[in-house]
Amino acid sequence: MKSTVTPWEVKGNINYDHLINEFGLQKIDDELLARIEKYAKAKGMELHHLLRRKIFFAHRDLKWLLDEYDKGNKFFLYTGRSPSGHIHLGHIFVWQFTKWLQDVFDVELWFQFPDEEKFLFKDNLNFQDIDHYLNENMLDVIALGFNSKKTHFLIDTMHAGIMYKQALRVAKKITFSTAKAAFGFKRETNIGAIFYTSMQAVPAFLPSFLANKNIPCLIPHAVDQDPHFRVSRDVITKLGYYKPSSIQCSFMPGLGGIETDGKMSSSQGSVAIYTVDDNQTVKRKINKYAFSGGKDTLEEHRKHGGDTSVDVSYNWLLFYEEDDKKLLQIKKDYESGKLLSGELKAILIEKINEMLNKHRIKRKKAKNKLKDYIYKI
Amino acid sequence: MKSTVTPWEVKGNINYDHLINEFGLQKIDDELLARIEKYAKAKGMELHHLLRRKIFFAHRDLKWLLDEYDKGNKFFLYTGRSPSGHIHLGHIFVWQFTKWLQDVFDVELWFQFPDEEKFLFKDNLNFQDIDHYLNENMLDVIALGFNSKKTHFLIDTMHAGIMYKQALRVAKKITFSTAKAAFGFKRETNIGAIFYTSMQAVPAFLPSFLANKNIPCLIPHAVDQDPHFRVSRDVITKLGYYKPSSIQCSFMPGLGGIETDGKMSSSQGSVAIYTVDDNQTVKRKINKYAFSGGKDTLEEHRKHGGDTSVDVSYNWLLFYEEDDKKLLQIKKDYESGKLLSGELKAILIEKINEMLNKHRIKRKKAKNKLKDYIYKI
Repeated sequence: MKSTVTPWEVKGNINYDHLINEFGLQKIDDELLARIEKYAKAKGMELHHLLRRKIFFAHRDLKWLLDEYDKGNKFFLYTGRSPSGHIHLGHIFVWQFTKWLQDVFDVELWFQFPDEEKFLFKDNLNFQDIDHYLNENMLDVIALGFNSKKTHFLIDTMHAGIMYKQALRVAKKITFSTAKAAFGFKRETNIGAIFYTSMQAVPAFLPSFLANKNIPCLIPHAVDQDPHFRVSRDVITKLGYYKPSSIQCSFMPGLGGIETDGKMSSSQGSVAIYTVDDNQTVKRKINKYAFSGGKDTLEEHRKHGGDTSVDVSYNWLLFYEEDDKKLLQIKKDYESGKLLSGELKAILIEKINEMLNKHRIKRKKAKNKLKDYIYKI
Repeated sequence: MKSTVTPWEVKGNINYDHLINEFGLQKIDDELLARIEKYAKAKGMELHHLLRRKIFFAHRDLKWLLDEYDKGNKFFLYTGRSPSGHIHLGHIFVWQFTKWLQDVFDVELWFQFPDEEKFLFKDNLNFQDIDHYLNENMLDVIALGFNSKKTHFLIDTMHAGIMYKQALRVAKKITFSTAKAAFGFKRETNIGAIFYTSMQAVPAFLPSFLANKNIPCLIPHAVDQDPHFRVSRDVITKLGYYKPSSIQCSFMPGLGGIETDGKMSSSQGSVAIYTVDDNQTVKRKINKYAFSGGKDTLEEHRKHGGDTSVDVSYNWLLFYEEDDKKLLQIKKDYESGKLLSGELKAILIEKINEMLNKHRIKRKKAKNKLKDYIYKI
């Protein structure tokens, strides 16, 4: 199955090495990992498991960013969430990693909620629904524990008073032809969708504009968002700001399997697990839907073992089980046939429910903290 | 010379009857004029000379608007100015007429300053220059004497916090294909310019949105802006609001002559007279540049008289000399050869300078009134 990776559609079994070439990214090599590890160690922390496991696998200008950091020129982080549904496990790990970066480097985070994006790209979505999910999604982000003093939510329609003018500076430098080539627009694409990428570019330089000084920017994001930044990087330098650096992760597969369901996406029909799913729902979904790498019969499984490369439960543990030793043991046991598919699923279910139970407690408390996070204009 | 009429370019000798057909407008007929006159008389006012002289010559749905008014369903007015230079005489008369409408019907006016439009459509214009002219232009508008309690300035980049979200509702319903057909966009058109018409649509329903009730809208505007409203009228009804009504005027010619310079436009090279021009400058410009309908020699002029149909001075008096009797006398005298071109120019110079001298006094006082006019968010 041929794969497709655009900001609005991810399909098929994705070849990430191919994407690196196609998008013009740099692979994160061991030297760079060792360098990042040093910053973590200095804070008494380990290299993040998503880096150790190369789930964050590519970057642009990260070495330059760290050179600037070493000179005392701190960067800020920029990531985001386009609200149109509940947060699921395919989102959470990117922001957990972003929080880790905030902690290691002690930097500001600008978190964009482009509440117009899905409105413009989905026919049947209205602002009432989006506003509902915007509010829900903000609670999830706050629950992840970002430093409220250093984290600023930008909501496109709410903050248009400071963002729209900056977006126009970007828009003036992007021709229809360029946008069409990057995003595949058609004659029937609406004119808001064509303009939208200008708004996604803004948080990459708005902090510099507001502070009236040039501040480096690091964008952690899933690789499907890359076309936006590919287009805006050059424009942003033309406006007099640093080219934003970025660090890209691969997708967490949907429960249906890696080959058919390369990215968990509720809108594309895959079965996702949401932060609002209770323990029973999590258990039911994983037991019912998680594609298994196990053998057809108990006998065969005991004899030949399971295949971790296609097993979704195992793959999800790559994202959420931080302990390398535990994970290695699971891998060995599963591949040897000692661990059965049902048992592997039980491990995942416990892990996820433990995480979500804690998350939901923090999420409840987040309601009172919204005003601390939303950027004040 | 073939004429061109788009929001960004007006060229050649314009056939207004042809435009009525091409744009699908209604001609303002005598019955409608008589009806408008009644409202004016009720306020002790005369029918406006720009209506008497059919300079405001076309409309959309004006009869419907007046029917609603008669039922007690008051409309609001919406007009605007895209800042990129000083205000000239080709602008002033539209707003004088708009003020007359405000006074006759005692209605709210929403005055848009789309400060991004020229930024997006002119390569070499930056926001610093636009901000300068925005401020200058607002003073001119205030100086015209609009009721400060019923007049609200909307500045697109400043009011994007309330306008952008509404513009998105419009944008979602306009395809690239439609925008291209209406505005002639090309591959190299920037994506901000493509989006822009959505922002120009907003003031036509924003007052309804803010008041949470459907209020009819009347847009007085020069006919070159019609493509915007042709596109947005249908969209606005799809959003649940009344189709905006409009009333269109023809252009005041540039000093260079009606046939070559159908619309006074500083950006298109015609010689314009600005509100900031002093008496000597006005005198010099008119004497030097105003295309004359007079004959080549004094003898011939006395014998055959001048041609008012091409004489720019006479044509300008159509816009700014309110007194029909005076104007008719001037026409007779000029066509009979009694009045010489220099004398006709002297009449115009006096008329314009008298108006601008008063205007500049009010303009000076306007600086303290800005906060009363700019809409508070």
